[in-house]
Amino acid sequence: MALVNEHLMKLPDNYLFADIAKKVNSFKVTHPKADIIHLGIGDVTRPIPQACAEAMKAAVDDLTHADTFHGYGPEQGYSFLTDAILKHDYAQRGVSLAANEIFVGDGAKSDTGNIGDILRHDNSIGVTDPIYPAYIDSNVSCGRAGTPDKDNRWSNVVYIPCLAENDFTPELPKQRVDIIYLCYPNNPTGSVLSKSELKKWVNYAIDNDTLILFDAAYEAYIRQPDIPHSIYEIKGARKVAIEFRSFSKTAGFTGVRCGYTVIPQEVTAATLSGKRISLNRLWSKRQNSKFNGASYIAQRGAAAIYTPEGKEQVKEMTGYYMRNAQLMKHWLDSTGLKVSGGENAPYLWVKAPKGFSSWQFFEHLLYNAHVVSTPGIGFGPNGEGYVRLTAFGDRQECEEGMKRICQHL
Amino acid sequence: MALVNEHLMKLPDNYLFADIAKKVNSFKVTHPKADIIHLGIGDVTRPIPQACAEAMKAAVDDLTHADTFHGYGPEQGYSFLTDAILKHDYAQRGVSLAANEIFVGDGAKSDTGNIGDILRHDNSIGVTDPIYPAYIDSNVSCGRAGTPDKDNRWSNVVYIPCLAENDFTPELPKQRVDIIYLCYPNNPTGSVLSKSELKKWVNYAIDNDTLILFDAAYEAYIRQPDIPHSIYEIKGARKVAIEFRSFSKTAGFTGVRCGYTVIPQEVTAATLSGKRISLNRLWSKRQNSKFNGASYIAQRGAAAIYTPEGKEQVKEMTGYYMRNAQLMKHWLDSTGLKVSGGENAPYLWVKAPKGFSSWQFFEHLLYNAHVVSTPGIGFGPNGEGYVRLTAFGDRQECEEGMKRICQHL
Repeated sequence: MALVNEHLMKLPDNYLFADIAKKVNSFKVTHPKADIIHLGIGDVTRPIPQACAEAMKAAVDDLTHADTFHGYGPEQGYSFLTDAILKHDYAQRGVSLAANEIFVGDGAKSDTGNIGDILRHDNSIGVTDPIYPAYIDSNVSCGRAGTPDKDNRWSNVVYIPCLAENDFTPELPKQRVDIIYLCYPNNPTGSVLSKSELKKWVNYAIDNDTLILFDAAYEAYIRQPDIPHSIYEIKGARKVAIEFRSFSKTAGFTGVRCGYTVIPQEVTAATLSGKRISLNRLWSKRQNSKFNGASYIAQRGAAAIYTPEGKEQVKEMTGYYMRNAQLMKHWLDSTGLKVSGGENAPYLWVKAPKGFSSWQFFEHLLYNAHVVSTPGIGFGPNGEGYVRLTAFGDRQECEEGMKRICQHL
Repeated sequence: MALVNEHLMKLPDNYLFADIAKKVNSFKVTHPKADIIHLGIGDVTRPIPQACAEAMKAAVDDLTHADTFHGYGPEQGYSFLTDAILKHDYAQRGVSLAANEIFVGDGAKSDTGNIGDILRHDNSIGVTDPIYPAYIDSNVSCGRAGTPDKDNRWSNVVYIPCLAENDFTPELPKQRVDIIYLCYPNNPTGSVLSKSELKKWVNYAIDNDTLILFDAAYEAYIRQPDIPHSIYEIKGARKVAIEFRSFSKTAGFTGVRCGYTVIPQEVTAATLSGKRISLNRLWSKRQNSKFNGASYIAQRGAAAIYTPEGKEQVKEMTGYYMRNAQLMKHWLDSTGLKVSGGENAPYLWVKAPKGFSSWQFFEHLLYNAHVVSTPGIGFGPNGEGYVRLTAFGDRQECEEGMKRICQHL
C-alpha cells in the first residue's frame, strides 16, 4: 500500500488565519450589524501601481499574437526582469550579483518552503521567536523540526527570543545551529536589524558554518537610511546566505504572484563526507525538476516597478501604508499601550494590557472595538501576550479602528 | 555545518532540453545560415484564446481599483474557476466532484513534483516507460527512486514497457508497486487508453492498494469519442487516483502558468500502523504551508476557456495543432517510417530507421533536415531508438520540416 508522509500529519489542519476567520464568523453571527475592521491578515489592499498594470496588459497582448507569443520562459526568469533586479535592487546599493544568482519564482512563501528540498532532513534549525509560522511548518512537514512538546516547541528547532527586554533584537544563540531563518524587516514584530547587528549574524554563520535564510520581503518599507535592505550589504554574506524577495508587499502583488530568490555561487553546504556543494546548483536542479518558471505576465508586471513611473508609484503605495502605520502608532501610543514596529515595517506589535493573553486581547479587540488583529501566539511561544496589527488597510478604516481601540481599552 | 540533500545530487545538472539546446547551438556554429525548424520541445506557439486575453486584461484592471482589488485568494482557487471546472470538465462527462476536491495551482509540473511531499520516501514507484522525465526526477530528488544502474534505471522504480509490440499500451506490472504514474494522452508516445484498458489499471490499484497519479494534461487533444478524458470516468477511481490537469496545452498557458489537481475525499494512503489518511487533507496541509495560491489574473484567464467563446477558441487552437499532427503523420507514413501517436495527442513517436539510436537519429534530422526533434532515450530506457516530434509548431514550418525529412531519409 502507498504510505503517507506522517510528518505532515503533525501540522494542524488549519493555518492561523483560518482559526481567526472562524472566530470572526462566530462574532458576526451574534453581531450581524457590527462594522468590522480587518487589521489582521498581512495582505495588501491598495491597487497595484499603474505602471505594473499597463505592463501586464501589454504582456497579455503579447500572448495574443504568434510573433510576440511567450510560452515556457527561461527557468530562472526573463533577463528583462533579472537585469532590472540586479541593477536596481543590488548594484545601486553596492551589491554585485550575477544573473545566474537570481531565481524568479511565484512568491516567497513557495521559495522559503521549497528551499528545504535542497537540504538534509536532519539539519538543526534556528528561528527568531516570534516568527512567520510557515518557516517552521515547512520544516515540520519533512521531519526536520522533530517533535513538539506541550507548548508546541519543536525538538530540533532552537528558538531565539525576541522580547521587549531586548527591544525585539535577537541575541546569537548559545547553541550552534545548521540553518537560521532571519526575516528583516520582521514579521510580526516590525523590528529591523542595523548593519552592525546583521553583521553579528553573518559572522556567526561564517564561524559556525551555518546557512542563513534571509527573508527580505518587507525591505521596501525601510525608512531609515542606514538599515540594510539586503544581507549582501554585509561583507562575507555571499558565502553563507540565501535571500528571499517578494513583489507582494513591494508592489501589491499578493494576487499576482511573483518573487525571487538569490543564491550566490559561493554559498555551499556539505555532504556527509564533507564535500562542499554549491546550493545555487542544487536549487537549479530542484527548480528544473519541480517548477516551470514564473508567469510571463507577472514578470512583465514586476519589471515595471523598476521604471521611473513604477518607482514613483511604489513609493506612493508603500508611503501610504507607512503613513497608516505612523498614525496607528500615534493613536496607540496615546493610550499607553506598548507598541513597537511601524517605523520601518508595515506591522505594529502591541503588548496586550491587563495580563491578557494573545487570544484574550484578540477577542477583547474584536468584541469591543470590532477590530480584527492577529494573536501573537500564532507566531510562536514568545508571541504570547501580544497581537499584531497591520498597516495594510484603508486610511479611514485604520484611523476609525484606532479610535475604537482607544475608546474600549 | 548545514548538510545538503544528497539525493538531489544524483540528478543530472541539465534537463534533457538543455542538452538538446547545446547540440542545436553546436550545429548553428557550423551552419550559421541553416533555417532550423523546432519540433522538439513540447511548448505551444499559437496565441492564447482571445476570451482568455480579455478576461486577463479585465483582471488586471480589477487590481487597479481598491474596490475590485484581489490580494491573496482562497488557497484552493477562486470558486469562479473551480465551479467552471466542476461543471465543464467533470459534470458534463458524468463525473461528480466537490469544490474542495479541486486544488488550483501554477501548473502540472509543480503539482506532479510536489505531490511527493505528502508520501513517504520509501514507497515503490511504477512508471510506464518511456515517460515524462520529471516524474522520475522528483522521486530521485527525495531518495524515493533509489539508486541508478549503468543504464540509468533506478532501483526502486518499476519500468512498465510501452513498446511497438504492445502498441504502446502498458501491461499491468507483475510486481506490485505503491504508486503508479499514468499520463494519458501519453507524453511522449501519443498513445491513449480506452475505457477498458484504463479500467484494468483502476482495478489493479484497488486490488493492490496502489495510488495512481494520473496526468491528463493533454486531454483536450482526444478526438475519439470513447476515450476517457478523466480517470474518474472509471468506477472506483475516486478511491485510488489523483488527477492532474493543466491549462498549458489546452489553452496555450505555458507562459501564463495555471493548472489544477483533483484529490477526491475518498483517496487515502496509510500510516505505518495501517491507519488510512485522506490525501486531500494532507495535500491541503502541504499547500497551506508551502504555496500561496495561483495568480488571480491566470485564474480569470483559465475560467474564460469555459465560456462559449472560450470553448470555441480552444477548439480552434487544439484543432490547428491536431491538423498539424495529421499532416505530419501523413508525410512520415509516406516515407515508410513507423509512426504512432498524433491521433488523440499532439505528439508523434517515430521509430528511428536503419538501426539509428535516438541521439543518432536526432543528429541525422538536425544535420540533414535541419529539424529539431527530441531523442526518445530522454524519456527512459524504452525510448531508445525513437524520437518525439511535436505538432505544436506553425503549420507551414511543420509541413516544410516533414518535406525535408522525407528528402533526407
